[in-house]
Amino acid sequence: MKLYAVIMAGGVGSRFWPRSREKTPKQLLNIIGAETMIQATVRRLEGLVDKDRIVIVTSRLHKEEILKQLPDVPEANVVAEPFGRNTAACVGVASLILKKIDPDAVSVVLPADHIIKDEELFRKTLERAAAFASESKGLTTIGVTPTRPETGYGYIQIDDGEPSAGIHPVRTFAEKPNYATAVRFVESGDFYWNSGMFIWRADAILEEMATYMPELTEALRMLEPAVGTERFDEALEEAYGMVKNISIDYGVMEKSDRVFLTKGEFAWNDVGSWEEVYQLTEKDAEGNAAVGDVYLDRCADSYVFSPGRFTAVVGVDNVIVINAGDAALVCRRDQAQAVKKVVEHLKLNQKNEYL
Amino acid sequence: MKLYAVIMAGGVGSRFWPRSREKTPKQLLNIIGAETMIQATVRRLEGLVDKDRIVIVTSRLHKEEILKQLPDVPEANVVAEPFGRNTAACVGVASLILKKIDPDAVSVVLPADHIIKDEELFRKTLERAAAFASESKGLTTIGVTPTRPETGYGYIQIDDGEPSAGIHPVRTFAEKPNYATAVRFVESGDFYWNSGMFIWRADAILEEMATYMPELTEALRMLEPAVGTERFDEALEEAYGMVKNISIDYGVMEKSDRVFLTKGEFAWNDVGSWEEVYQLTEKDAEGNAAVGDVYLDRCADSYVFSPGRFTAVVGVDNVIVINAGDAALVCRRDQAQAVKKVVEHLKLNQKNEYL
Repeated sequence: MKLYAVIMAGGVGSRFWPRSREKTPKQLLNIIGAETMIQATVRRLEGLVDKDRIVIVTSRLHKEEILKQLPDVPEANVVAEPFGRNTAACVGVASLILKKIDPDAVSVVLPADHIIKDEELFRKTLERAAAFASESKGLTTIGVTPTRPETGYGYIQIDDGEPSAGIHPVRTFAEKPNYATAVRFVESGDFYWNSGMFIWRADAILEEMATYMPELTEALRMLEPAVGTERFDEALEEAYGMVKNISIDYGVMEKSDRVFLTKGEFAWNDVGSWEEVYQLTEKDAEGNAAVGDVYLDRCADSYVFSPGRFTAVVGVDNVIVINAGDAALVCRRDQAQAVKKVVEHLKLNQKNEYL
Repeated sequence: MKLYAVIMAGGVGSRFWPRSREKTPKQLLNIIGAETMIQATVRRLEGLVDKDRIVIVTSRLHKEEILKQLPDVPEANVVAEPFGRNTAACVGVASLILKKIDPDAVSVVLPADHIIKDEELFRKTLERAAAFASESKGLTTIGVTPTRPETGYGYIQIDDGEPSAGIHPVRTFAEKPNYATAVRFVESGDFYWNSGMFIWRADAILEEMATYMPELTEALRMLEPAVGTERFDEALEEAYGMVKNISIDYGVMEKSDRVFLTKGEFAWNDVGSWEEVYQLTEKDAEGNAAVGDVYLDRCADSYVFSPGRFTAVVGVDNVIVINAGDAALVCRRDQAQAVKKVVEHLKLNQKNEYL
C-alpha cells in the first residue's frame, strides 16, 4: 500500500489575531515552538508518507508561502482554492486528484494546525487505520481519548463490543456539549474527541459523497477532466462556484453507515485560542509565558508575545497581550474566544490593513 | 513694568513612556487636547508676556523641536542645557540672562508641563504677584487651593493674618504628606499645593541664591560674561559641570525669609502619571477614554491610546494601554507610578531604542 496524505490548510485563523493575519494564518505561524504548524504537520508524517505523496489544499493567498516553508513538497501537489468552501469540498477535490494518480490510493486527511505529542504513537494510529482502509471501504476517524470534559470539541460515540484490530464502529456524532454533558461523555468511556483527522480510500469517500452530497459530486465530475492540466485552477474556480460551504462531518460522516473510529491515545490539541497557547507554553514561577522583548512587573498567569517590539505589563494578571506589527491585543485569558469578534469588527469597518 | 517669563522645559517625562521618549518628553506632547503642553504654557501667557520676553530652558535634544512648536519665540530665547541640573540651575541661568537684558526684569517662572483651566483667573493671579514683585524683593510662589487630600504634591503653609493685596507670608514648606496628614492639611485651610510656579525680580532670586547657593552663584558669575555671545553654549556646559543637582525649592525657597504665596484658585494639575491623564480626559458611559484606532469589548474604566496603530482590549477593566511606535504599555491604573520603573529597566539594559 502506498499511503498518501491530504493536508487541509485553508484556515484563516482569526482567533490568533493580531499574529494571524489574512496573509499569515495560524498554520503558517510558529504558534508553539520553532516550526510553523504546517511544517510540524508534514514532519510528523516522515517515514510514513513520502513528500511527493502529500497533497496540500490551501488558499491562493498562501500557496507561495507554503511552498517556501515546505521546499520538499512538489508545487503540483499544492491545490490553491480560489476561496474557502469548508472541508467537504477540500476533501472532495483532493480525493479526486489522488484517485486519478492511484485508483487504490489510501490517504490520511489531516488539518494543518494541530499540536500532537507522542508522535510515534500518532504514526502507529495512522498505520492501524490505513491498514483497515486498504482492505475496506470504511471511513475511519481518529477519536482522541478525552483527558478532561472539554466543551470546545465535538465528540464521537463508539458502539459497544470488541473492536476489530483497533477499529470501532461509530454509533453517533455529538456537537460541542455543555459542561454537564461533557462530564457525562468523559465518564461514559465510549465518547472520544472528534479530531477532524480521517483515513480512507479516495474512492470510498468519493462514493459516499455521491450518495450524500450530489451537488458536490456533480461539481467534481465537471472538474475531473481538468485534473493535471493547465486548466485546473480555472476549472476549480468554476466548480467551487457550484458547491455549498459544508463540512465533511456534516456532509458525509454524520450520515454514512460505513464510519469507524480508531482511538488516538496521544496528546492532541487543536489550539483554538490564545488561552490554549498559554496552556501549552512553558511558564515561569509566576505563571507567565513571555515571547520577545517583554518587561513584566507584578504580573502573573499571563501570556505576552512581542518579538521585534517592546511590551511592558505592569500590575495586570490573567491577560493575553499580543503586540504584533501594526496592531496589539490585550485580552482577559478567559475571553480569548472573543478575539474573532475583533476580526469581525475590522472586516465590518473595512480596516483591511489590520486583517 | 515689562513682564518676562521663564519656562522650565527640561523634563524627561519618563512616567509617560512609551509616548514620552528621550526625544519627545511630556512637555512636547499633546497629552491632553490638541496643543502640546509647552504650546499651551506659552499661549496662556498671551496678553501678559510678549513672545520675545519668554525665555525657555530646555535640553539640547529638544531645542529644535521647541522652536518648531513655537515659531514666534526667538531662537536666542531658547537656552539649551547640555544636561539636566534641576530647577535651581535652570532658574539661575534664566535670571542671569533676564537681568542682563533688563536690570529691573520681573519674571514669572513656569513649568512647561502643567494643565491649567480658568485661564483668565490664572493670568490675574500672575498679575497680582507681578505687581508685588515689581515693588519688592519678595519671592512669591503660587499656592493652589487644594480640592482633595492629594498625597502626590508638596504643600506650603501660609502665616495667619490678613494678606496684603493677596500676598501671604509663607510659614513653611511641607514634603508630600501621607494621606492622614494630607487630610489635616486640607482641613486646616492654611496649606496650599506647591505648584512650582514663581514670580520675582530676577535680581531678587539671584541675591537669595548668592546667600544660600554659593556654588551655583560662583558658576553663574563665570558664565555671566558669555551671556549673549557665541561662547554661551560652551560656557554653560562648563558652568553646569560645577553645579549640583538641586531644586529651587530645596536650594532657596525653603530657606529664604522673603518667601510669599499668592493663592491660585484656578483648576491646576501637574499631570504626573497616566492615571491623571485618565482622570482629566472625557470618558464614555463605560468610563473609557480612547484615543486613536481602538476597539473595546466589555472593557471599563480604562484609558487606551493608539493613534496610527490598532489596539483591541477585550474583557479587561481599569487599565492604561499605550501603543506607541515600537513599544506598548499595559498597566493597571493604580500602578501608573510604576511606569518610570520600565524606563529604568530600559536604561539598565541599554535598550536605548525604546527610550
